[in-house]
Amino acid sequence: MKNLFLVLLICLFSLNAFPKDGYELWLDYSSIESSSKRAEITSLFSGIYFFGQGPTQQVIQQELRLASQKMMGRDPVFTQERLNQTQLWLGTREELAQVLGLETQMQIRNLGPEGFWRGSIDFQGKTYYAIIGNQPIGVLYGVFDWLKSIQTDTFDPKSEKTDAPKVKLRMLNHWDNLDRTVERGYAGFSIWDWHRLPGFIDPRYIDYARANASLGINAVSLTNVNANAFILTPDFMKKAKVLADLFRPYGIKVFLTARFSAPIEIGGLKTADPLDPEVVAFWKKKTEEMYSFIPDFGGFLVKANSEGQPGPHEYGRNHAEGANMLADVLAPHGGIVIWRAFVYSHEIDEDRHKQANFEFEPLDGKFRDNVIIQVKNGAIDFMPREPFHPLFGAVKNTNLGMEFQITQEYLGQATQLVYLAPMWEEVLRSKTYRPSPTSTVAGIIDGSDSGQKLTLMAGVSNIGTDRNWTGHLFGQANWFAFGRQAWDPNLSSEEIAEEWIKMTFGQNKDILAKTKEIMLESREAAVNYMNPLGLHHIMGRSHHYGPAPWVEGGRADWTSLYYHRADSEGIGFDRTATGSGALNQYAPEIANSWSDPTQIPEKYLLWFHHLPWDFELKSGRSLWEEIGLHYDQGVKTARSMKSEWDSLQGQIDPERFSHVSQLLAVQVQEAEWWRNACLLYFQTFAQRPFPEEIEQPQGDLEYYKNLDFPFAPGIRPRW
Amino acid sequence: MKNLFLVLLICLFSLNAFPKDGYELWLDYSSIESSSKRAEITSLFSGIYFFGQGPTQQVIQQELRLASQKMMGRDPVFTQERLNQTQLWLGTREELAQVLGLETQMQIRNLGPEGFWRGSIDFQGKTYYAIIGNQPIGVLYGVFDWLKSIQTDTFDPKSEKTDAPKVKLRMLNHWDNLDRTVERGYAGFSIWDWHRLPGFIDPRYIDYARANASLGINAVSLTNVNANAFILTPDFMKKAKVLADLFRPYGIKVFLTARFSAPIEIGGLKTADPLDPEVVAFWKKKTEEMYSFIPDFGGFLVKANSEGQPGPHEYGRNHAEGANMLADVLAPHGGIVIWRAFVYSHEIDEDRHKQANFEFEPLDGKFRDNVIIQVKNGAIDFMPREPFHPLFGAVKNTNLGMEFQITQEYLGQATQLVYLAPMWEEVLRSKTYRPSPTSTVAGIIDGSDSGQKLTLMAGVSNIGTDRNWTGHLFGQANWFAFGRQAWDPNLSSEEIAEEWIKMTFGQNKDILAKTKEIMLESREAAVNYMNPLGLHHIMGRSHHYGPAPWVEGGRADWTSLYYHRADSEGIGFDRTATGSGALNQYAPEIANSWSDPTQIPEKYLLWFHHLPWDFELKSGRSLWEEIGLHYDQGVKTARSMKSEWDSLQGQIDPERFSHVSQLLAVQVQEAEWWRNACLLYFQTFAQRPFPEEIEQPQGDLEYYKNLDFPFAPGIRPRW
Repeated sequence: MKNLFLVLLICLFSLNAFPKDGYELWLDYSSIESSSKRAEITSLFSGIYFFGQGPTQQVIQQELRLASQKMMGRDPVFTQERLNQTQLWLGTREELAQVLGLETQMQIRNLGPEGFWRGSIDFQGKTYYAIIGNQPIGVLYGVFDWLKSIQTDTFDPKSEKTDAPKVKLRMLNHWDNLDRTVERGYAGFSIWDWHRLPGFIDPRYIDYARANASLGINAVSLTNVNANAFILTPDFMKKAKVLADLFRPYGIKVFLTARFSAPIEIGGLKTADPLDPEVVAFWKKKTEEMYSFIPDFGGFLVKANSEGQPGPHEYGRNHAEGANMLADVLAPHGGIVIWRAFVYSHEIDEDRHKQANFEFEPLDGKFRDNVIIQVKNGAIDFMPREPFHPLFGAVKNTNLGMEFQITQEYLGQATQLVYLAPMWEEVLRSKTYRPSPTSTVAGIIDGSDSGQKLTLMAGVSNIGTDRNWTGHLFGQANWFAFGRQAWDPNLSSEEIAEEWIKMTFGQNKDILAKTKEIMLESREAAVNYMNPLGLHHIMGRSHHYGPAPWVEGGRADWTSLYYHRADSEGIGFDRTATGSGALNQYAPEIANSWSDPTQIPEKYLLWFHHLPWDFELKSGRSLWEEIGLHYDQGVKTARSMKSEWDSLQGQIDPERFSHVSQLLAVQVQEAEWWRNACLLYFQTFAQRPFPEEIEQPQGDLEYYKNLDFPFAPGIRPRW
Repeated sequence: MKNLFLVLLICLFSLNAFPKDGYELWLDYSSIESSSKRAEITSLFSGIYFFGQGPTQQVIQQELRLASQKMMGRDPVFTQERLNQTQLWLGTREELAQVLGLETQMQIRNLGPEGFWRGSIDFQGKTYYAIIGNQPIGVLYGVFDWLKSIQTDTFDPKSEKTDAPKVKLRMLNHWDNLDRTVERGYAGFSIWDWHRLPGFIDPRYIDYARANASLGINAVSLTNVNANAFILTPDFMKKAKVLADLFRPYGIKVFLTARFSAPIEIGGLKTADPLDPEVVAFWKKKTEEMYSFIPDFGGFLVKANSEGQPGPHEYGRNHAEGANMLADVLAPHGGIVIWRAFVYSHEIDEDRHKQANFEFEPLDGKFRDNVIIQVKNGAIDFMPREPFHPLFGAVKNTNLGMEFQITQEYLGQATQLVYLAPMWEEVLRSKTYRPSPTSTVAGIIDGSDSGQKLTLMAGVSNIGTDRNWTGHLFGQANWFAFGRQAWDPNLSSEEIAEEWIKMTFGQNKDILAKTKEIMLESREAAVNYMNPLGLHHIMGRSHHYGPAPWVEGGRADWTSLYYHRADSEGIGFDRTATGSGALNQYAPEIANSWSDPTQIPEKYLLWFHHLPWDFELKSGRSLWEEIGLHYDQGVKTARSMKSEWDSLQGQIDPERFSHVSQLLAVQVQEAEWWRNACLLYFQTFAQRPFPEEIEQPQGDLEYYKNLDFPFAPGIRPRW
């Protein structure tokens, strides 16, 4: 009976003539319901004065045409004649100089190449609406912003708006392999169909570029940081060139990952020593070749001497020597090197937390200006919660960029709804106390505190061939939020959520309120049922799916035991002066107060302290009890997210409703699995009963330990 | 300038509000243009008398609702009251017995469980239209057939039609791995999202079932024949159960592939010897477990002792002993064993062509009734052209099923338009001369010549997560044609093409004429530019992409040299009595005439004969000249296919037009590549000039030999 119901339910969903499958992302441009608003917008679209004929201008016209067709069911009217018979003006500051006051012109000029101004202009007794940038890309950004204001019902023709990005490079990092598998990808295959490029162009490439441009994302690294040198052969350069050509009108620059040992693998050399003249010549030639295909090629993203990847250390050279060699060959072309700080060695018997600072602090000031060090938000690896990476604030003369992970490797992959913006906001607003007492991570990233000119925020993509792009519909919100926060690190996760919800589901207030609540509580829920109170790195080995605090054996810092250190006495990783001392990598303001387990924010407690099971927390309860309560609270929140969503049935189209509802049911199961497995496991050390008021963990620890997922998605292929 | 054009072209295509992306397959149900026809159909949909409430009936209603919405923009009206106020009657023979004459009842009864009757019924002075089956699935097939008649504009309410499948099992074989890669898959990932099953149901599963049911495909093997034993664990059975539940209302049974060594890998045994009692007990328990999840589970598909797969030979047992053991444990549940005849051993120094017959002829009559031997259409491996497999006709008391390959492993993968139905038709109509002088392959497969009751036609799926399902839009035609030919092996490839074109592109006569011409000439074109005159197995190693007649080294029968045997004297594989003798595996009528190189059809010439370069063909030209002419003709046809398609611009929606046009451009390049590489290579042996009238092969043989495709799609993963 249940099966029959299921079948009917699904039939119903799939057989709509035009099902909502999420492909449109936040650019669905749903039909405008209000007749007065419809008339107002229709009027603006009925006469668009449009300068310029370049590729970006064509892209703007296409976007306006699509939006107009979908919002009003009619084509817009463009003209390049008779300014005063139009309603909406689009162009650059120079193109529209004749109708702009000097003050407005100065205001726009100060917005830089990517900024825009939009507002009303009085001209010869009539009022017009204008969207103006210094460059065509600024106009495109302004148009997307204006369309967003229509979609979110916040457009006011009488108010002015200016905006410009605070970070120079707003970048997606794809961990996509040349065979189309995606490392840590949970949304199908890679969208890059390398095999059929350059001859066959998937229309999806354009929709990808549109989506990124709508957020201001202006750079993309196409290939996995665990790189394959083949991407640097002419056959693949030709393929990358097609993507670069398609993305250029949308203001997006293409980067590629460089495998440090490429001179050996595809260059026929015996060494990849960065100081070897033949190696330098190899890279010089490769770079020139690359620029012959892609004249505005962005540069190389490099993972070196990390997790087995080759790098300068093999030749007794340091990271600066490796990075600077590449920087020097790129500099004449205007390219840059993005060098990852995610380095740790199995040869060094030292807390992994400390290794990036060990390697990079001594090199401060030694990197070229066109090198930027890309630092993960935390020192371990994209855990559900990490304190900010201690490199932020520790170096003064090195460009630092942020690396966030949009794909949910440790945060529920594609089965869980976890809105990541609150996590990123938490990191960006963290006070570093260096270089100045008021410095924040955001201030270092955007240059306002650090003074660096080359700024970067990178996000590891969660995009794949799944029809809805991100596997889980709400994965779209993380792509969206990353783009918005990269544009302006000061935006709040709440306002970003509101924008995304309205653009995705429309104006319904009930949907907005409930969906926003679900999103905003989702990350803390995940922390609670996965890694509460500073626990970390206790997930399944290799695929990182589900709980596995029992992982041991092999390389120590790839096990769970290394990180939770539970024993009969207590639990947690002592990183104070009595332990690994990693805490001392932070500013004294932090190191001093966090060294005291009664002063450190409890969310970081077990990250830095090994404490007895009976240690008393601020609630007056013991550590053991609070661990239980947090896990249980995580499960309860997951359940309330599910019931909250399910209460929207009938208000949301059945396809997307069912998609999310099914996945939330999975999420509840996975939350219970995390709670049960972790608590049963930790109880073997704590030897204490669970707090009475929580739902008692069910099941058998051996059952959980024996679960096996050899085909979990996103595992690195074995080349 | 060219880039700009490209960008604009693509923008135009991708920014339509409702682009045609091919997802709908042949079930697009395009709006009925003619007002009189629209009125006629609308009338029928406005009163549908509908018996029964089971899952298949629900599925029928859903399909009619979708078709009605898309064809007429309105919902149909169903009722179960007052027969005489309705227009269209749907039900089983028993349900509608009261209104059927005895003769019609007998006629329907004889159509069997899957057959249907549709036509008009006079009742109480009024005429009704009825679709009737013996079982609900027959009604579903009848409804799909009726909807097809509307889509193809051939519906005549006054004419009667009966139909029933000629083959019992019409089956797709997915070569899909549990990690979602697809062996020899060129359309993205596997559509089976194992990781998120059973909790998450992709609506695509339903559309897959609909598409298959619309063709009469009634069985599917979900997993790769290079099997992983993990599919037989309860975790995966639960996932397969969900798919079986979803497919059941559509009349589709689920099969799985069984890895012969599973008793060792997941059973903890030390042996997989089919005569070992513990092994038998393992399979008995596994089978019972499977039926507890899927009560109508179809059975196991097995690849054993082939290309390194485990099998009974390891234990000194033969194929019959291996297959019968599984058959015996399946029999009580009604399950069957499908045992592949694609076996050849690297330990036997014998023409691969002969090995299946060597192994299976001595076992004739030794297999259980619920075993069927699945035989590829030819003895080598899905080459562009093969003579029919000599097992057809060679055994008398063994069930034989056909294995075709829909995925274009050797036929252009997903970059080429090659309509495969003419190839399958050629095989099915081949005369075997055994068991009777008039026997054909089709007659053996459908039982009419062989007398076998258990009949099977299997096709290796070309389906993946690509939005259009098959990578190349015209890959859909091969899925479609396979289903149609499995239903009725006597259908012509031309009438199938017509159906598909009309259902896919509508009624436009120019599209029909040109597209049909392209399709019908496409396979011979591919044979010409790849493997003319009986050449075979000269493609790239491992990935099988592109030409590589120079492949040598390693296992002999995996090289090209083994098959073409070119030398300074001539070319071809002598399989006559003076050579390997494989020709003698055929009936004497064939063996005798084909042994003579002047009598054998020239399309098979080099398959069976090694002949001097100057050997004179029927045209009066030398073999060398004819090879050149055939390769060149293939290229010319590819070009004319492209120009023919391009002449349809403006008549076909821009998305699908561009998709196919781009791929045809790739196809022309690949055809030229094949011709140039093969002719330049063979010339090194022939040492003769190319015929003057052909386009001279361009390029440098070394260049072609050095092309490298390490990331070509569809390669078997290295577990």
